[in-house]
Amino acid sequence: MEHVTFIPTVDQLNYTFGGAAPVMRIKPGTVLTLWTEDAYGGRITSRDDVASVALDTEDLNPQTGPFFIEGAEPGDTLAVHLVDLTPARTWGASTLIPFFGGLTSVPASPTLQPALPEQTWIYDYDSTRRTVTFSAQRSEFEVALPANPMLGTVGVAPGRREVRSSLVPDSFGGNMDTPEMTAGATCYLGVNVPGALFSLGDGHYRQGEGESCGTAVEGAMHVTAIVELIKGGAPAWPRLETDTHLMTIGSGRPLEEAWRAGQVEMITWMGELYGLDRLDAYQLLTQISQVPIANVVDTNYSAVTKIDKRLLPPAVAFGGVHTELRSAARSLGSINY
Amino acid sequence: MEHVTFIPTVDQLNYTFGGAAPVMRIKPGTVLTLWTEDAYGGRITSRDDVASVALDTEDLNPQTGPFFIEGAEPGDTLAVHLVDLTPARTWGASTLIPFFGGLTSVPASPTLQPALPEQTWIYDYDSTRRTVTFSAQRSEFEVALPANPMLGTVGVAPGRREVRSSLVPDSFGGNMDTPEMTAGATCYLGVNVPGALFSLGDGHYRQGEGESCGTAVEGAMHVTAIVELIKGGAPAWPRLETDTHLMTIGSGRPLEEAWRAGQVEMITWMGELYGLDRLDAYQLLTQISQVPIANVVDTNYSAVTKIDKRLLPPAVAFGGVHTELRSAARSLGSINY
Amino acid sequence: MEHVTFIPTVDQLNYTFGGAAPVMRIKPGTVLTLWTEDAYGGRITSRDDVASVALDTEDLNPQTGPFFIEGAEPGDTLAVHLVDLTPARTWGASTLIPFFGGLTSVPASPTLQPALPEQTWIYDYDSTRRTVTFSAQRSEFEVALPANPMLGTVGVAPGRREVRSSLVPDSFGGNMDTPEMTAGATCYLGVNVPGALFSLGDGHYRQGEGESCGTAVEGAMHVTAIVELIKGGAPAWPRLETDTHLMTIGSGRPLEEAWRAGQVEMITWMGELYGLDRLDAYQLLTQISQVPIANVVDTNYSAVTKIDKRLLPPAVAFGGVHTELRSAARSLGSINY
Amino acid sequence: MEHVTFIPTVDQLNYTFGGAAPVMRIKPGTVLTLWTEDAYGGRITSRDDVASVALDTEDLNPQTGPFFIEGAEPGDTLAVHLVDLTPARTWGASTLIPFFGGLTSVPASPTLQPALPEQTWIYDYDSTRRTVTFSAQRSEFEVALPANPMLGTVGVAPGRREVRSSLVPDSFGGNMDTPEMTAGATCYLGVNVPGALFSLGDGHYRQGEGESCGTAVEGAMHVTAIVELIKGGAPAWPRLETDTHLMTIGSGRPLEEAWRAGQVEMITWMGELYGLDRLDAYQLLTQISQVPIANVVDTNYSAVTKIDKRLLPPAVAFGGVHTELRSAARSLGSINY
Repeated sequence: MEHVTFIPTVDQLNYTFGGAAPVMRIKPGTVLTLWTEDAYGGRITSRDDVASVALDTEDLNPQTGPFFIEGAEPGDTLAVHLVDLTPARTWGASTLIPFFGGLTSVPASPTLQPALPEQTWIYDYDSTRRTVTFSAQRSEFEVALPANPMLGTVGVAPGRREVRSSLVPDSFGGNMDTPEMTAGATCYLGVNVPGALFSLGDGHYRQGEGESCGTAVEGAMHVTAIVELIKGGAPAWPRLETDTHLMTIGSGRPLEEAWRAGQVEMITWMGELYGLDRLDAYQLLTQISQVPIANVVDTNYSAVTKIDKRLLPPAVAFGGVHTELRSAARSLGSINY
Repeated sequence: MEHVTFIPTVDQLNYTFGGAAPVMRIKPGTVLTLWTEDAYGGRITSRDDVASVALDTEDLNPQTGPFFIEGAEPGDTLAVHLVDLTPARTWGASTLIPFFGGLTSVPASPTLQPALPEQTWIYDYDSTRRTVTFSAQRSEFEVALPANPMLGTVGVAPGRREVRSSLVPDSFGGNMDTPEMTAGATCYLGVNVPGALFSLGDGHYRQGEGESCGTAVEGAMHVTAIVELIKGGAPAWPRLETDTHLMTIGSGRPLEEAWRAGQVEMITWMGELYGLDRLDAYQLLTQISQVPIANVVDTNYSAVTKIDKRLLPPAVAFGGVHTELRSAARSLGSINY
Repeated sequence: MEHVTFIPTVDQLNYTFGGAAPVMRIKPGTVLTLWTEDAYGGRITSRDDVASVALDTEDLNPQTGPFFIEGAEPGDTLAVHLVDLTPARTWGASTLIPFFGGLTSVPASPTLQPALPEQTWIYDYDSTRRTVTFSAQRSEFEVALPANPMLGTVGVAPGRREVRSSLVPDSFGGNMDTPEMTAGATCYLGVNVPGALFSLGDGHYRQGEGESCGTAVEGAMHVTAIVELIKGGAPAWPRLETDTHLMTIGSGRPLEEAWRAGQVEMITWMGELYGLDRLDAYQLLTQISQVPIANVVDTNYSAVTKIDKRLLPPAVAFGGVHTELRSAARSLGSINY
Repeated sequence: MEHVTFIPTVDQLNYTFGGAAPVMRIKPGTVLTLWTEDAYGGRITSRDDVASVALDTEDLNPQTGPFFIEGAEPGDTLAVHLVDLTPARTWGASTLIPFFGGLTSVPASPTLQPALPEQTWIYDYDSTRRTVTFSAQRSEFEVALPANPMLGTVGVAPGRREVRSSLVPDSFGGNMDTPEMTAGATCYLGVNVPGALFSLGDGHYRQGEGESCGTAVEGAMHVTAIVELIKGGAPAWPRLETDTHLMTIGSGRPLEEAWRAGQVEMITWMGELYGLDRLDAYQLLTQISQVPIANVVDTNYSAVTKIDKRLLPPAVAFGGVHTELRSAARSLGSINY
């Protein structure tokens, strides 16, 4: 395995899927040691920094990448295995941004009501206890929560010549914002352009399902990932595999359309794995599907369809690449920063 | 505690929330031993029974009840603790019904495409191993799944003089179809009319989140429940409490509106329990919310907002009634049929 | 033709479709001279009356009726021809009601933002010039608008034993809030229960499409209508016919589902009138459909699909009942109050 | 006025908003004589050409442009006045494309139902009578409909570095598919990038509101337009002005969000034109708004909010540019091809 380290300078950050020149060409099987800036571009550092003053609204959600994967062609499948996600700062930040979030009106669905007040919460990250601490601003309430490092954004360049903001989740991946995108998971993405042009970012030290207020405990992240290429087999929507679960992620609006996309993708996958007819798979999925919502705040909403592998007979997805990558990850030994 | 047994005759079944005369008046604190017919009215008994022939479309989803709870007034809170749910048959049935389900067009959102084929799957229920067995119809695939008995429908009469079909979930509860409605849970419902007029039904031996095809492993159920009354405190949307979780259930269309209703209800509840300001609660919920979808197939869709109690300091909801009811349930001893 | 006059007392008003005892039994072909109270129950009479103080939220949108139509059976079609709508007061009122309307968050889709300010606008109705006058409250702007008397609500009892609030539009008609429901139009409704139990109300002196803020220029109305019965032929969704147009009205959420329901209903109607295959009708409708939105503020949204009769060959709908009722209406001579 | 003629070769066609090099730099005030290919890229020429065989799915909806407008900067307003639209062929084509359209399931909201049959209808265009003729394929029905030439697509490059497919409508304009985009209308678009990068295409010889089946009577078009630049004043969403109406066009999903965007844009415009407070404008709009739906079939849906100028006092929008452009258009004399 080749092993590449890439820590982007501010100028090397990108803000789109598609449309940016690759920062590097890598071979399939490469281990990447990366650093990702937070979704604010590092501009929120204290409770006194509020979004409307601190943020550059054209430069939100910076991505590390894109990487050109040698040999990747449209119709292929990129497998991105997240080996390790470690918070790169001692604190994370979550903010109320005017007219952004799940429980406010937004420009895409405006009302005449005023915006909610701007506000920033700083969560201290305790790397020993692996907790982030919430402190209420209008009462004495304080609570330490287990950290759950994850990436909001993993994606490739879209098709049809499009370039999409890194704020958008869609069939190319992107800003799906699911807590399932965590260390130990392998993300499968269909390749749309030569080289795939894969990038990632938007580290969250912790996030609930839905990402209600629009921002998780956002923080810079050390990321170790292995990128593998599978010829052909491109899924229509992103898939995730862990040691214990199979998942698909649909994105769209309204939320039920995101759900439908993920469900049909899973029915297709069940057909591939078990030879199940589509109606049989529909029936079985009805009884075993888990649906942890990902986000209800982004340009598209995202919904996960999830199956516990223990409920089904053993099956090998994508030629067993997840198992191989888990093994390769273990061979890397302990990861220190 | 008074203990009442009620096994409805076919003529005593009801098909609405509101609008039906109570089958019985009970005192708060009464233990109910009930039997519920399946959502098909017992008319699907083999793979040869298909919906369009076997079902009476005016008589779907029969409810056991309504019960008039003495002293219940609008603005009060009904607490329904599910002590035990035990399958009452040795098999359950799931069906594809024409133009019903999550991955087909439906009359409320019609397309010009033909209906999917009608089809019925029978799941054998093994009461010893507590499994239900799926058998594919177009291949040899078979798998035994853990049974997870739950009730699709728990509700009270709606307000504004309305009478709603038992197929509908809304703020009065009803056909929410969440796998969280299981033994050990206490469901809190706001009372809209004198006596509350509570009923339940729609037993599922197992259901995945979303209830994709529209029907779970439907089956008749033995139900043991304790019904308690809390004066005042009516929640705007149904709430659930278990030993480990707090939950709210919003229903509506599109799905994001169901989610919003449940999220705001939880923020209200967090304010009641912890004195949290609404924006602080919004922020905290963002990082800890779980959102297992309930159904994406009924007249309204339903989404659960769920919090793991272990993440937060101990707090007493509704005067501790859940703990009391759990204790009372244990005092009932083992339940045999 | 029998001719019946019915001016309800306050106690005779009803607030639901279904669930209320008929105020009168009438024969098909009866001419009805009615009076309808405004949607506020007459409780808003000046700019000083605001909704949260003046309104009884359980008694909104009072209906005149229901009328039991002799011989009407489920599956039949009720034809309600609106002969004349004349404002019954010299003013109408439109209000901003907290958390109600199209450009605010609402309880079914809540946000954490505060409500818009309550406010009432009184429009003077000039019966000679037939105008209603808007006066801005925060500037000197004033403008007289042509009155366009219409009924927000026309409906029958729903099926499946349901009782629905008069605030709801659905397949039984109800609170569709379309400016197309005006004098000269014939409304076709499918009958769900014996006697149909038809009622109407919610007079608007003028309303734009969408009814953006939630309330039109609401006012009491003198209504002259002829009710006719067609055996069989029940449409799935309400239809409207005027001398110049054919219309269908779908209701639901999200708005595109209301649109789909109305479009498919029109395709069905085109098949009945012209023998067109469904795909041919779909194609033709694509090129000739008008879609004036009805409401985006009620429990369900409503969308009209409308065809200009001049674009198509002459055809006779429902046995020519619209033409007959137009003729009968003319024979009534001038209408004076 | 400079006068420029541009007839693109196949290689000069573009398929995105943003991302394409300008075909030409023009000065504000330039008259453009253009030709636009149809949305199929000219590949459907008879009933025997069906979409899945004939179309190149990566090359749909070709645009003529983009034009770099000298002096246009982000925040400015581009005014595109459509002087004349004349069908450039003697026939247009409308097709059923598998899993595309308003009354079928689509990839963004999939079901398990099969696709509708593929089918192509050819409409003869009679340039003398100005009609297009529909012929049913499964019966003898035939009808000549008035032609109503319009452009489905008018837009500029989007912001945030994005490149969007020409199939998408959004705040930058694009594939709005409204029959209001016709000769005599001036379209106002906010500029997002230097030079605006304006393009247009997707001629329809006739289209109903909603574009139900997904394709209008598609045909190549001769287009005469004048492009003017207004410094500053960029609207948030596209606006249209004709001699008789003011319009705004919102796009999004679900359809009610498109409606909300357009309504709030109109309220803003009413404030600009009449100094109306936002709540006064909301109230007035409620009584005068027309809402002819544009499309319910594209990636985003589009809804028009429309006001009849005769209802309001005279007012001058964007410094009277529409009146000036109408006058300039008349000075061009008759247009012949």
